[in-house]
Amino acid sequence: LPDIAWVNGRFSPLEQAYVSVQDRGFQFGDAVYEVLRAYDGRIFAVDRHVDRLRRSCRLIRLQAARIIECLSDLLAEALHRSEYTDAILYAQITRGVARRSHRIPAGLQPTCVLTVRSIEETYKLEQANGVTVIGLSDIRWARGEIKSTNLLASVLLKQRAAEEGAFEAVLFNGRDELTEGASTNVFIVTAGRLRTPALSERILAGVTRQVLLELAEKAGIPVSQETITCGEVVAADEMFLASTSIEVLPAVVMDGRPIGAGRPGPITRHLQQLYQRAVRNWPS
Amino acid sequence: LPDIAWVNGRFSPLEQAYVSVQDRGFQFGDAVYEVLRAYDGRIFAVDRHVDRLRRSCRLIRLQAARIIECLSDLLAEALHRSEYTDAILYAQITRGVARRSHRIPAGLQPTCVLTVRSIEETYKLEQANGVTVIGLSDIRWARGEIKSTNLLASVLLKQRAAEEGAFEAVLFNGRDELTEGASTNVFIVTAGRLRTPALSERILAGVTRQVLLELAEKAGIPVSQETITCGEVVAADEMFLASTSIEVLPAVVMDGRPIGAGRPGPITRHLQQLYQRAVRNWPS
Repeated sequence: LPDIAWVNGRFSPLEQAYVSVQDRGFQFGDAVYEVLRAYDGRIFAVDRHVDRLRRSCRLIRLQAARIIECLSDLLAEALHRSEYTDAILYAQITRGVARRSHRIPAGLQPTCVLTVRSIEETYKLEQANGVTVIGLSDIRWARGEIKSTNLLASVLLKQRAAEEGAFEAVLFNGRDELTEGASTNVFIVTAGRLRTPALSERILAGVTRQVLLELAEKAGIPVSQETITCGEVVAADEMFLASTSIEVLPAVVMDGRPIGAGRPGPITRHLQQLYQRAVRNWPS
Repeated sequence: LPDIAWVNGRFSPLEQAYVSVQDRGFQFGDAVYEVLRAYDGRIFAVDRHVDRLRRSCRLIRLQAARIIECLSDLLAEALHRSEYTDAILYAQITRGVARRSHRIPAGLQPTCVLTVRSIEETYKLEQANGVTVIGLSDIRWARGEIKSTNLLASVLLKQRAAEEGAFEAVLFNGRDELTEGASTNVFIVTAGRLRTPALSERILAGVTRQVLLELAEKAGIPVSQETITCGEVVAADEMFLASTSIEVLPAVVMDGRPIGAGRPGPITRHLQQLYQRAVRNWPS
């Protein structure tokens, strides 16, 4: 497969792309990233992803303005070179290569890694039938708004879910309030109202999340961004997960009990249709 | 400088050591590590570091038994090749190279990176005079017992301390209880008693921490591993930081106010001497 990478100015096959063992992305997770998706030869919502990456850099004080300015063009070029029309694109910016020390060294050149890969999983079956989730404690760090590569907590939570036969771990903070899935934003529907946790230091401003909120508002679906308790999740009429990779995925069972009727609900279905239309007609 | 690296069986100069951009250590921080120190040609407490790395691997379900069995010998060989007698050694084990996906793929070969570097900072001045620290909220994930490369929170906390002219950030949890420094364990002395937070999921079992507790007990200094409140830290007679790199470092000012007399205290001094003797006569 012609999966490719671009590392600091150089294209190569993905398997031949390397970074220094002294890269702070490798030794400290001192790095931020984006996952993007191309549909029919166009990268969906690329400007929003680039804006978020710029924000992540700012929040960790990583100066990478020059590369971020070119990122949209670079991603388009990478997609073009790969010859894929539908693909997963990945962009990671690290603080750069330096002698190991926690403190941030001055004058580093950031490392930028882009990859383009084929789409192996489309989640069509899961999108049609819905998936099972389990509720777990949110053990991640306090700055989930930063899309960093410090993902070990998410890996362990996702793995725990998989071992219990679930697709995703839905996370609750110490006050039993919904935060996110291990790698997704979570929505519920209560009495016809679409609800998702309000943005905060702990909640990632998901691109899919934001697009769905806008699509819902345009479609006249009432929307709330607010605190949602575990009890409200359990009692919801519908629940779904959202991310660039899985798009809109109904969650129909949590911890062995059905959510609502235990099958994808009407507002979830409606948003799936709106989202599929949006990704192919963007900007609409 | 003859700084060197060993990556999956191959020695090279440190600057020529690379890992794949698809390494899970780079994309997920799906990796654990150790920092060790050689004194006079011998690696201090290498068995304890190897044991802790084995435990970190177990806690994240990383199967690397074969490489960990050889690690002590490999580190000794790396030190020998570098021709340093005093050096910083670093060992990092990652889950390996795989197509990007949170869930842990089966059958991966772990990546093992070792490095040997000269000691640039010995902290002699700081050890003699003591350092300034600031108190900050502990924003790290809930599993500090795992020595993982998810270190962005520590980087940001350490940087914040540096920008306020402090050497280290001393961290407190949501109940205003002492946890750790951003990259150190923290001890205080109250009325002749040496105190440090008890081990838990959130507290790293520091090798220097454990050696100091043993040295204190042998020397007849009363020791407590327990919950320590912010108020108790502020009112302490002495305070110090401990790690492999900084050894025993007195903290004499926190948030602009002196700790105790505002200079290194007698129990801190005693432990500095015992530790310097221990690292040169290990196992004693």
